[in-house]
Amino acid sequence: VGTPIAIVGVSGFSGIELAKLVSARRELELVSVFSDRWRGELLGKHVAGLGRAAHVVVRPQAEALMAAHEADVVLLATPAEVSAELAPKILANGSRVLDLSGAFRLPDPDVFRAYYRFEPADPAVLAETRYALPQLPHASGGAPAIETARLVSNPGCYATAAILPLAALLARGLVEPEGLFIDGKSGVTGAGRKLADKYLFTEVAENLSAYRVADHQHTPEIELALSRIAGRDVRVTFAPHLVPLRRGLVATCFGRLHEGVSQADLEAAMRDAYPDESSVFGERIVEVVAVEDATVAAVHGTPRARIAARADTPRRAFVAIGAIDNLMKGAASQALENLLAMLSVPGAS
Amino acid sequence: VGTPIAIVGVSGFSGIELAKLVSARRELELVSVFSDRWRGELLGKHVAGLGRAAHVVVRPQAEALMAAHEADVVLLATPAEVSAELAPKILANGSRVLDLSGAFRLPDPDVFRAYYRFEPADPAVLAETRYALPQLPHASGGAPAIETARLVSNPGCYATAAILPLAALLARGLVEPEGLFIDGKSGVTGAGRKLADKYLFTEVAENLSAYRVADHQHTPEIELALSRIAGRDVRVTFAPHLVPLRRGLVATCFGRLHEGVSQADLEAAMRDAYPDESSVFGERIVEVVAVEDATVAAVHGTPRARIAARADTPRRAFVAIGAIDNLMKGAASQALENLLAMLSVPGAS
Amino acid sequence: VGTPIAIVGVSGFSGIELAKLVSARRELELVSVFSDRWRGELLGKHVAGLGRAAHVVVRPQAEALMAAHEADVVLLATPAEVSAELAPKILANGSRVLDLSGAFRLPDPDVFRAYYRFEPADPAVLAETRYALPQLPHASGGAPAIETARLVSNPGCYATAAILPLAALLARGLVEPEGLFIDGKSGVTGAGRKLADKYLFTEVAENLSAYRVADHQHTPEIELALSRIAGRDVRVTFAPHLVPLRRGLVATCFGRLHEGVSQADLEAAMRDAYPDESSVFGERIVEVVAVEDATVAAVHGTPRARIAARADTPRRAFVAIGAIDNLMKGAASQALENLLAMLSVPGAS
Amino acid sequence: VGTPIAIVGVSGFSGIELAKLVSARRELELVSVFSDRWRGELLGKHVAGLGRAAHVVVRPQAEALMAAHEADVVLLATPAEVSAELAPKILANGSRVLDLSGAFRLPDPDVFRAYYRFEPADPAVLAETRYALPQLPHASGGAPAIETARLVSNPGCYATAAILPLAALLARGLVEPEGLFIDGKSGVTGAGRKLADKYLFTEVAENLSAYRVADHQHTPEIELALSRIAGRDVRVTFAPHLVPLRRGLVATCFGRLHEGVSQADLEAAMRDAYPDESSVFGERIVEVVAVEDATVAAVHGTPRARIAARADTPRRAFVAIGAIDNLMKGAASQALENLLAMLSVPGAS
Repeated sequence: VGTPIAIVGVSGFSGIELAKLVSARRELELVSVFSDRWRGELLGKHVAGLGRAAHVVVRPQAEALMAAHEADVVLLATPAEVSAELAPKILANGSRVLDLSGAFRLPDPDVFRAYYRFEPADPAVLAETRYALPQLPHASGGAPAIETARLVSNPGCYATAAILPLAALLARGLVEPEGLFIDGKSGVTGAGRKLADKYLFTEVAENLSAYRVADHQHTPEIELALSRIAGRDVRVTFAPHLVPLRRGLVATCFGRLHEGVSQADLEAAMRDAYPDESSVFGERIVEVVAVEDATVAAVHGTPRARIAARADTPRRAFVAIGAIDNLMKGAASQALENLLAMLSVPGAS
Repeated sequence: VGTPIAIVGVSGFSGIELAKLVSARRELELVSVFSDRWRGELLGKHVAGLGRAAHVVVRPQAEALMAAHEADVVLLATPAEVSAELAPKILANGSRVLDLSGAFRLPDPDVFRAYYRFEPADPAVLAETRYALPQLPHASGGAPAIETARLVSNPGCYATAAILPLAALLARGLVEPEGLFIDGKSGVTGAGRKLADKYLFTEVAENLSAYRVADHQHTPEIELALSRIAGRDVRVTFAPHLVPLRRGLVATCFGRLHEGVSQADLEAAMRDAYPDESSVFGERIVEVVAVEDATVAAVHGTPRARIAARADTPRRAFVAIGAIDNLMKGAASQALENLLAMLSVPGAS
Repeated sequence: VGTPIAIVGVSGFSGIELAKLVSARRELELVSVFSDRWRGELLGKHVAGLGRAAHVVVRPQAEALMAAHEADVVLLATPAEVSAELAPKILANGSRVLDLSGAFRLPDPDVFRAYYRFEPADPAVLAETRYALPQLPHASGGAPAIETARLVSNPGCYATAAILPLAALLARGLVEPEGLFIDGKSGVTGAGRKLADKYLFTEVAENLSAYRVADHQHTPEIELALSRIAGRDVRVTFAPHLVPLRRGLVATCFGRLHEGVSQADLEAAMRDAYPDESSVFGERIVEVVAVEDATVAAVHGTPRARIAARADTPRRAFVAIGAIDNLMKGAASQALENLLAMLSVPGAS
Repeated sequence: VGTPIAIVGVSGFSGIELAKLVSARRELELVSVFSDRWRGELLGKHVAGLGRAAHVVVRPQAEALMAAHEADVVLLATPAEVSAELAPKILANGSRVLDLSGAFRLPDPDVFRAYYRFEPADPAVLAETRYALPQLPHASGGAPAIETARLVSNPGCYATAAILPLAALLARGLVEPEGLFIDGKSGVTGAGRKLADKYLFTEVAENLSAYRVADHQHTPEIELALSRIAGRDVRVTFAPHLVPLRRGLVATCFGRLHEGVSQADLEAAMRDAYPDESSVFGERIVEVVAVEDATVAAVHGTPRARIAARADTPRRAFVAIGAIDNLMKGAASQALENLLAMLSVPGAS
C-alpha cells in the first residue's frame, strides 16, 4: 500500500484535482479528506474517477488536525489564512505539510503583511519552509532539502508561469533584471470557488478586466525567486487579468535585452534550462515552443508548462511567455511533483 | 435628406456595425452597399434595426467603383489589399473615401512592406491621407484638415486602445518614450470573418494565445502616432493575444516613469488630455477610470474608450490600460466620428 | 416633451434595457428611476447611450411609491413579490402600471400559489389586469383594452417564445391541444442578477442543466394564453434548461399533428397569424423562418421573435420553435410595445 | 504486453480521446495510428499523457489497411463514408473492427440511404455487425455475441443519451411507445473538426440553433434500438440543437405516461435497469439522479451517463433526461467498454 496522504480543502478546485492525482498513484493512498461543503458525504459522490478513494468520507474542516495522526503528508488546499494557522499545528503533531496557499511563500514579514494583509506565520516555521518549484531548485534559496523538509510551500500559479521563462533568461544574463513587466491572464478557477458578483457568468462572459495591478501578492514571490536565480535584485511590475476561461493561465513577460542578444540565444537558454525529458508524469514538464504555441489549449488539463521567448532586436526588447493550467502546474500537479519528491519516489526531482 | 454614403464590405463585422450607425443618423443616408457574400439580397435580411436602409439591395463588390457616383463619402470596410487598390480609383472618380483598413496608415513604404507584406499604395495618395484619431489631432501629423481631406484613414483597433492612454502620459512627459510594452487582448471579431481552423469555436473557447508577437502591423502605427504626439521617437514592443470573446479589446501598456512622477500626475494628465464631455454620440467618448474599471463589459457595444493608469512608484514603473469595443471605437463608431467630422457636422470634432 | 415614465428596478438586466429603450423614444421621457444597488448615483454612470436620461439620479427603492406622482406610467422591473405589493399602491396613488414580473399573469389564486409560492395579489386588482402579448390580443381574454387598462402585465420570456409559434398552429386547429411539450433553453440573464453558486461562471460555462422540470411558473401562463387562443383547454409539459449564453432564449415545442396536416399548412398558419410588417420599432416583430434559422444570434439584441415549424409527417408529429432575446422580446422591448400601446402612440398595436 | 490495437482517424476529437483511453490500459497496446493531418509526426507531439504511446508515429490514412496486419482490433474514428469502405477491407484482411461512425448502425438499406445519403455497406457485412450499447444488450437484436463479433458498431452520441433513459421506461411498459419526442443539445465537438462558417467561434458563442430537425440520422438508430427493447414499434421525433459548449450532450425526452404511473415507478424502473456498480472504469457508468442533476458538468470528461425522469402526473406526461460527454460515453469511452468486451477482458460487460 502507498504512503498515507490527507487533503484539507478537498472541495475546492485545486483540492479536487489533487484528489484525482493522488488517488491515481500507486505510491500514495488518500486516507483522509476534509471540507465543510461536502462533509459527511462520500468523496466519490462529487469527484469521478477516484477508484478506491471514492469511498473516503469527507470530514468537517474542524477535524483537519487529526490528519496529522493519519497521514505522513497533509496537503493544504486552503486559503492562506487557514493554512497559516493550520500548518504549524499539523507540524507540531508530527506530520509533514505541503501547502498550496501563499501563507509560507514570503519569508519577510513586512512584505508579507503588505501583500497578504494579515499577520505572517511564526518566523521559526517560515525559516524551515522550502519554497519548491521542481524544475528550479535555485528558486528555493538555502531552504532544507525537499526530501527532509517538514513544510513545503507550493508556488503560486502566476508565479510559476512567469518564473519558468524568465528564470532561464536571467540565469544566463541575457536580459536586464530591472524594468521587467508581467501581464497575467487567468481563468476564473484561479480565484477559487468564491461567491461574488464579479465571478458570475453574466459578469465574466464577454468581459476581461485587470485587477490588483502592481499590487498582486505574487509580485514579491516572483521577485524573490528570480532574485535567487539571477543572483541579484530583480524587480517586476505585474498586472493580472481575469479572462473568460474556466482554467488556464498565460503570463506574458516583457523586458530589455542585453546588447547583442539574439533570438537564438533566448531559445538556447530556455532549452538548456529545462533539459530533462522525464518526470513523475512520465513525460517532459517544461516544453520550449514558439510564442504562438504557448497556448492555454496545449496545456489544458495537463501537468505541462509551455514556455517561449521572442527577441524584438530592433528595440533591444523581448517577450517571454509561460502557459500553464492554473489548477495543474499552477497548483495540483506541481504539488504532486513536490509530494513525490518529499517522499523520495524515484523519478521525482 | 442626409448626405449620401456608401459602404463597401458591408457583410463584415465592421461593415455591419457601420450600416447600423450610418442608418441611425439623420444627417446621413445609406444609399449603396457592396458585398459578394450577400449580393442581390436586401440588407435588412441580414441586419436588424436599419429603418429605411433595410431596403437597400446589396451589390457585388465588383461594382464598388460605382459608389463614387452615388455617394459623397465611400466607407471601405475591406481588407487592406482591397482598400489599397480601390481607394485611389474612387478618389479619381470624385468621391471622398474613409478607409477602415490599414492600407493608408503608414506613410513609409519600407515600413509598410515589412509589416503588411504587399506593395503600398501610390505615394501621392498616401501623402494626402489624413490619419484621424478624433480625440488626438496631433496624431495626424501635418495632414490635410479632416473637413477637406479626400482620403481619411481610420486607426487600427489595437492602436486606438494603446494610443489613447499612452498619448496622455507621453504628451506631458511623465513617462520614458523608450522601453514601452503593449500587451493586447482582442476578441475574435478583431480578425474579421475568416474561415480558418484557429477561429473555430473548438479552438478558441477555453483557449488563449499570442500571435504576431513583436511583428504586428499596428506596431509602427502606434509608434508613428505616439512619436508625433511626444515630439520625439517612441518605440513600442507589442504582443497581441486572441482571447475567447466575440468583441472587446484591452491594451495593457507598461513602461518606466520619469523620476518623481506620482499616481496623481498620471490621472491628471489623462483627465486633462480628454476634457470634452460632448461627442456626436451625445456623450463623452474617453472616460478616465480606475484600472479595474477599464473593462470590456463597460465598453461592449458602445463608442466609448475607458482608459486608466497606475503608478508602480517603488519600481518607477507604470501600467496604463485602454479598453474599447474593437468593432465600435476600434472600427465603426470611430469611423462615424470621422465621417461626421469630414462633413463638418456640428459636434463632430 | 414626452410622457413621463418611471422605472422601478432599473439596475436589473431588464431594467437596464428598459432605460435604454425608453430614453431613445421621443414620445417618452424617463423622469424617475429606482434601485437600491445604484442609489444616489447618476443613471448614466452605469448605462451608456441614454442621452438626457443619463443625468437622472437613481433613488432608493423605498421611494418607489413617489413615482406615482411623477410618472404617467410606472414600469416595474422587480421580482414578483415586490411587484405584487407595489403595483396596487401605485395604482391607488393614481399612476398606471406596466409590470414585467409574473405577479399578475395568473388570475386563479390556487394556480398562482402552486407555482409562485406566495400569496397572490388582491383579486380586484387581478381582475382589472390586462395580460398583453402585443401580436396576440386573444391571449388577453376579456381584459380591459390596453389603451385604458390601469395595470398591464407583460408576458414571461419562455411564455412569449412558446406561445408565438404554438398559437398560430392551435388557432387554425392544425395540432392536437393535448400532449404538447416545450423544451426551453435560456441564457443566464433570464434568471436576473442573482448571487448564487449555480450562476457562477465556473458552474455555467461548459455546462447545461434542466431546472423546475414540469414545475416552472410559466407553464400555467402558457396554458392559459393558448387555451384562450384555441378556445379549448390546452395542456403543456415544460422543461426549461439553463445554457451557457448571456442572453437569448429558444423554446422548442413538440406535439401531434391532426390527420393530413402538411408542412405547407404549418407555414401558412404561421405567416397568416403574423401578417403585419410594421411595429413601434419600424420593422416586423415576428419573422417566420425555416427551423434552422430560428437562432439566438438572429434575434440577439433585437425586439424580434423568429418562429418556425417542421412537420414530421411520417410520425404525425411537429416541431415548432420560437427564438427571442430574453431581455428584449422576452422583457424590455415587449414592455415598450405595450407601453406605447397603453399611450395610444400611433403604430403601437 | 497488451493486445495490439490500431486507431484510424486519430487526430479527430474522438480519435484523440480513444488514444488516451487505449494507452492508459495495461491490457492494450496502441501500436498503429493513422491520420493525414498529423502524418509523419509523433503522436505525443499532439496528445499529452500517452506514456509509451507518445512515441508511435502517425501514418497517412491511405496506409490504414496495413493496420489489419498489425492489430487485433482496428478502431475506426472516421466519417461514415470512410468507415463503410474501410471496415470490410480490414475484416477481409483478418482483423476485427470497432467502428465509431454511423456506417453500420442501420441494417435497412432504404432507411440508411434516406438518412445518410450515400450507399450502405455490403448487406453481408451489415448482417454480421453487432450494434453494442454495453448496458443494454437487448438493443443489439439478434447480432453475434460481442466476444466473437468481427464487426462492432458503437452507438451514436445522441442515441446513447436518449436510449439509456427511454429504454428503462419502455422495457417496463410505463410509457407510450408512440408520441415520443427528443430534444438534443450537443457541444460543438459532436460535429467533429469541420471547417465551416457555422462552427466558427463568432457564430457559436452567444448562439443556439436547431438543425436537421425531424431528419437527423440518429432518429432511426434510436427507433430501432428502442423497438428491440420494447418488443414493439417505437417512433420518435428528434430535434437536435447546437449549443455553445465544447463537449457535453443532453437529450431531453418527452412522452405520455400510461395510466396510473407515478414518479416512484419511473425511478424504480431506471434504477432496476442499471443495477451494476462495476465497469471497466472501476465505477458505475449509468447513474440515476434527479432531473436537475443530469448536467453536462457532472459527466464532463468522464465515461458516465446521468439519467433522470420526472412524471408530470396531472398531464399524464413525463420528461426523461440523459446527459453524457459526447466524446466519452458518446464515443470513445463507450468504444473502450466495447473493445474490452470484444477481448473478453474481465469486468467488461
